Amino acid sequence: MANDNTVFIGSKPPMNYVLAVITQFQNGAEEVCVKARGKAISKAVDVAEIVKNRFMENNLEIGPIEIGTQQLDGKEGGKLNVSTISLTLKSKGKEIKNPTK
Amino acid sequence: MANDNTVFIGSKPPMNYVLAVITQFQNGAEEVCVKARGKAISKAVDVAEIVKNRFMENNLEIGPIEIGTQQLDGKEGGKLNVSTISLTLKSKGKEIKNPTK
Repeated sequence: MANDNTVFIGSKPPMNYVLAVITQFQNGAEEVCVKARGKAISKAVDVAEIVKNRFMENNLEIGPIEIGTQQLDGKEGGKLNVSTISLTLKSKGKEIKNPTK
Repeated sequence: MANDNTVFIGSKPPMNYVLAVITQFQNGAEEVCVKARGKAISKAVDVAEIVKNRFMENNLEIGPIEIGTQQLDGKEGGKLNVSTISLTLKSKGKEIKNPTK
């Protein structure tokens, strides 16, 4: 269930992913999982914090937060270790604030 | 107690901070707290994962992991929101691996 509601953080601006998360909640998801690896980890934390502070204040619980290491194939056949993060966002209510107010 | 054993992640290479963490454990700390904000958040996760996988395999528990937002004074008097992370590393034993083997 949680895997169906996963947002992978890539190279787009943070607001794109914030909107993706909000959309999932508006479509009835109770949990959204935000995942990232490497340099995008900082952006994943930004996305979770923006959703919480600007859109769903007091209605969002963040956690558990899990980190790990993924082994990718590097250039010339080597192996590359990349850190990963997974943040579970749980809605505690249905109200989503209008960020323009 | 945990606050005494805090490693703040800055702009140096990850290995500098890995060694700072290992040194704290070797000096008898049971818990070391790794903190970072902004872009350094990815590096903080790297540091925790390197300590766990290369130096203290099976002897380190990572968690709780907490995230937050800090308001800094921006240029021209504005306010700047910066994400923060705090990773608690707990030693489950005294053995620290020799990473050169």
